[in-house]
Formats: sequence, C-alpha cells, structure tokens
Amino acid sequence: LLTLASAQMCGYRGERAASLAACVEFIHTATLLHDDVVDESALRRGGASANAVWGNKASVLVGDFLFSRAFQLMVETDNLAVLDILAGASAIIAEGEVMQLKSSNNLAVGEDHYLKVVPAKTAALFAAAAESGALLSGQSEDFVSGLRSYGENLGIAFQLVDDALDYSGRQALMGKTVGDDFREAKMTLPLILAYARAREEDKPFWKRVIETGNQTERDLDRAITLIEQTGAMQETMQRARAYADIAKASLKVMPESDIKHALADIADFCVERAY
Amino acid sequence: LLTLASAQMCGYRGERAASLAACVEFIHTATLLHDDVVDESALRRGGASANAVWGNKASVLVGDFLFSRAFQLMVETDNLAVLDILAGASAIIAEGEVMQLKSSNNLAVGEDHYLKVVPAKTAALFAAAAESGALLSGQSEDFVSGLRSYGENLGIAFQLVDDALDYSGRQALMGKTVGDDFREAKMTLPLILAYARAREEDKPFWKRVIETGNQTERDLDRAITLIEQTGAMQETMQRARAYADIAKASLKVMPESDIKHALADIADFCVERAY
Repeated sequence: LLTLASAQMCGYRGERAASLAACVEFIHTATLLHDDVVDESALRRGGASANAVWGNKASVLVGDFLFSRAFQLMVETDNLAVLDILAGASAIIAEGEVMQLKSSNNLAVGEDHYLKVVPAKTAALFAAAAESGALLSGQSEDFVSGLRSYGENLGIAFQLVDDALDYSGRQALMGKTVGDDFREAKMTLPLILAYARAREEDKPFWKRVIETGNQTERDLDRAITLIEQTGAMQETMQRARAYADIAKASLKVMPESDIKHALADIADFCVERAY
Repeated sequence: LLTLASAQMCGYRGERAASLAACVEFIHTATLLHDDVVDESALRRGGASANAVWGNKASVLVGDFLFSRAFQLMVETDNLAVLDILAGASAIIAEGEVMQLKSSNNLAVGEDHYLKVVPAKTAALFAAAAESGALLSGQSEDFVSGLRSYGENLGIAFQLVDDALDYSGRQALMGKTVGDDFREAKMTLPLILAYARAREEDKPFWKRVIETGNQTERDLDRAITLIEQTGAMQETMQRARAYADIAKASLKVMPESDIKHALADIADFCVERAY
C-alpha cells in the first residue's frame, strides 16, 4: 500500500523517487519485523512471520538493518527537507509504539488516547510518504499539504479497519491471525467502545480478560460477540469510512489524472477490504 | 567512551557538534538495548539491563525510538556528508550484528571471519564518530582520514578487549556478567584461538559446548582455563595493544593539544582496563 509514495511521483523524478519509495517500504518492513517480535505474532501476510521462522534475534537485527538502509536511501535523495520529514515520522512512529505498549491492559484508556496513538503509529508514515513524494517532485505548498492530509487520513482509516479486522472472521481470510490485539490486551477502538457501552454484568468479563490478562480459549468468541452487540464494530468501521472520505477530499489539490483516481481508489479499498 | 566525538570537536562548532555527539550516543544506546535483548543479557553497566527490568518489548521499541531520534539529530547537523557517514555506519553495524548471529555455534569460523565482523560491529561507529567530528569542524582531508583511522583502530582494540574480558574475572568487577559470549556460543577471538590451538583431547569439549550448545554450570570454568592455557587470552590482549598503538599513531595528523593527549590516553585506557 505504501508504494503510493512512488505512485504519486511517477513521471516526476525517476531515481530519487524510487529511493524514496524504497526507503518508506524499508521503514515499514522494519516496523513490521519488530512489531511481530513485540506482539509475538506467528502469522504475517498469509505465511509464517519472520520471527516464527528465524527467531526473535534475527527479526530484531534485520529490522535494525532495514532501518539503517532506509536512512541511507533517505540521504541519497539529497534533500534535507525530505530527510527531516522522514526522520521525524520515524521518531513519531517509534514513540507511538511505546505509547501503545504503555496502554495495554488498561481499561481506563479512552478514545482520546487511542486517537493520539493511531496518528502516531500508522498515519505518520502514510503522511510522510505522501508529503515527501510531493515535496521531492517540486509541488506547491498547497499541493504538499493536501497530499500530507491525504496520507494522514488514509493512515487513520487503515488503522481503524485493521483494528476492526482483528475482531473479525474476515481477518483469517487475509492470512492474519484473529484476536492478536485481544490476546495482547491492546486498547484498540473496538474494545474501547465496547467497554464504554458495556452492560454492568459484562464488565467483570472485560476486567478479567484485559486488566488481569487471564484468558481462556473461548474468551475471544465472547469478546467478538460483545463488540458486535454493542455496535462497537459498526461504529469503528463508520469512523474509518469518514477518515477515508476526508483523505479523498484532500486530493482536490491535484489535477484530474489516473494517479489521482488511483489514490482515491486506495482510500475506498482500504475501507472496503473489511466487507 | 564515544563522547570522543564531541571531545575532539570542542572549540569548533558548539551546537552542531553537540547534536552529532548526542546522535552517536543514541545510536550506541539503541544498539546496546537491542543487543541485550538478542543476547538475553541480565546485566549492563553494573545494574540490571533494561530488558531485565522492563522486558524485551520495551527494549526493542525504545531502541527504535533512539535510532529514529538519532537520525533526527543527524539531519540537524545540516551536513549531507556527515549524514552519509553516519547512515553508512549504522548500516554496517546492523549488518555486522547479523553476520555475528549467523556465526554462532560454528567452530569452523576462523580469525578471518572474526576480523570482518569486529570492524563492522564496533569499529564502524568509533570510526564514524571520529571522522564526522573532524569533517563537521572543517578539517583537511588528511586530518579527517587520520581521525577515521584513529576511531577504527580504537574500536577494534576495544572489541578485542571486550571479548577477552568476557572470559575474565575482571569483568565481574566492571558490573557485567562473565561468560555471556560463551553461553551464546559466540565465536570471538579468545575462543577461535583456543580452539585452533586445542589439544585433540579437548576438542570434544569445545564441540559439545559450542556446536551443540549443551552446557553445564562448570563448563565456563573449564573454558576459561583452556583459553588461558593455550595463550589465547594473552594473544588477544597483545593484538588489542597493537591496534591501540596504530590508533595512537594515527593521531600524528593533529597538532599537539590537550585533546590529542586525551585521545591517546583513551587508547591506552581501552587496553589497560583489562589488567
């Protein structure tokens, strides 16, 4: 998905655009390698995750290698403004991961905290990819900030859908395990909304599985049922749709073109993949 | 130790030099956080390691955060040549860690491989710190490459001593556990030399503890005895001394000054700390 960085720059400056797109992909892949270690995930993109095959050590070190290669590729763009955007995004992403780690197992975490973590965690890289591509290709300030807004809102929509899918059977079809966030007791929006709307008699369940982390095999099914019943799933998806619409509206700075339509389609696909 | 980057630049350009020195420290600290996860080390600098206190997850993510902050600080130096050196060094370090991971448990690993890993793993950051400091302060090409040579040889000496100390009782006095490399079956120079010089009757011992990783409590004592008896410890320290002397000789490009003497003292201290 993040190759949107290169997609939008097609036709501008070939080689530097390719370095930049590769750089974003490397940062993303490094983040995934480390995420799978931190989350103890066994599946990624339909296959065994790298940590499942080669162990945590290799995943940590190869992630570090990709990070450092990403920074080498950044330097190759020869553009300090682009470097500043991408280095800043990496710092925000890393900070977002730490913020998220701190909020696990804590039912007191509310929507406001979640809405701080998501832009940091996921949307920062989408925003940086879109912004730096526009910047490198010499676009106007309005164009650059429009593209940044597109990336940021697309990133938020993407993460909301991702968090919804973790409680959905659709996830299994996409080659990812269902319930990773649940087992990690991550305070994602479906869970935050479901707990905020929970009946008194369901609260002890949430306290046990999230706060004490004491879970049995069948708890995930009950969690999914409660998230559906309270409308938390539907609400999460509606919000994702709203962010995707803001992303599309941000594209008004671009003249009509195939690339513009492709970017709008990505925003739609990002939400529709969940249905 | 790595604040040598700032030390040598004192009196040149205050703020950028400080950014650069902080950047090197951050890369170093990030590497240590990840190293302790990968090596499962419980001790660092005389106290419990970060992973022992806060767990592997926090160590991986905070390490990533420090890496990304380091790259932000690099960008602040506003100097693409410096960025190139430091981004390159980070990539080499990460690659060196992966190389080292691959060579564990393999008695066929020889000196030649070790002498490829060490410059990558440790000396790259020392070299980059020394070189980029000189570069940022506008020194001549000779001066810059002399400082690079100082950093690189100091780094190799430092790593050789570190690898020797892992098999020495002195290590315990310095607040690090003894035998970490042994338990990880890392092919460091003391072990490589001891195995190359091993009597036939001692080879099955090395095969068991290193190749199969099947170790008992008392094996470390026997390993230390064999490393001492074969002269592997002494030889490792002699080589460290030789690299430290090359480092000092590389300083001939600098005019006499307190900083020059301090740098020479660091090279001596680096070797003498083991006695």
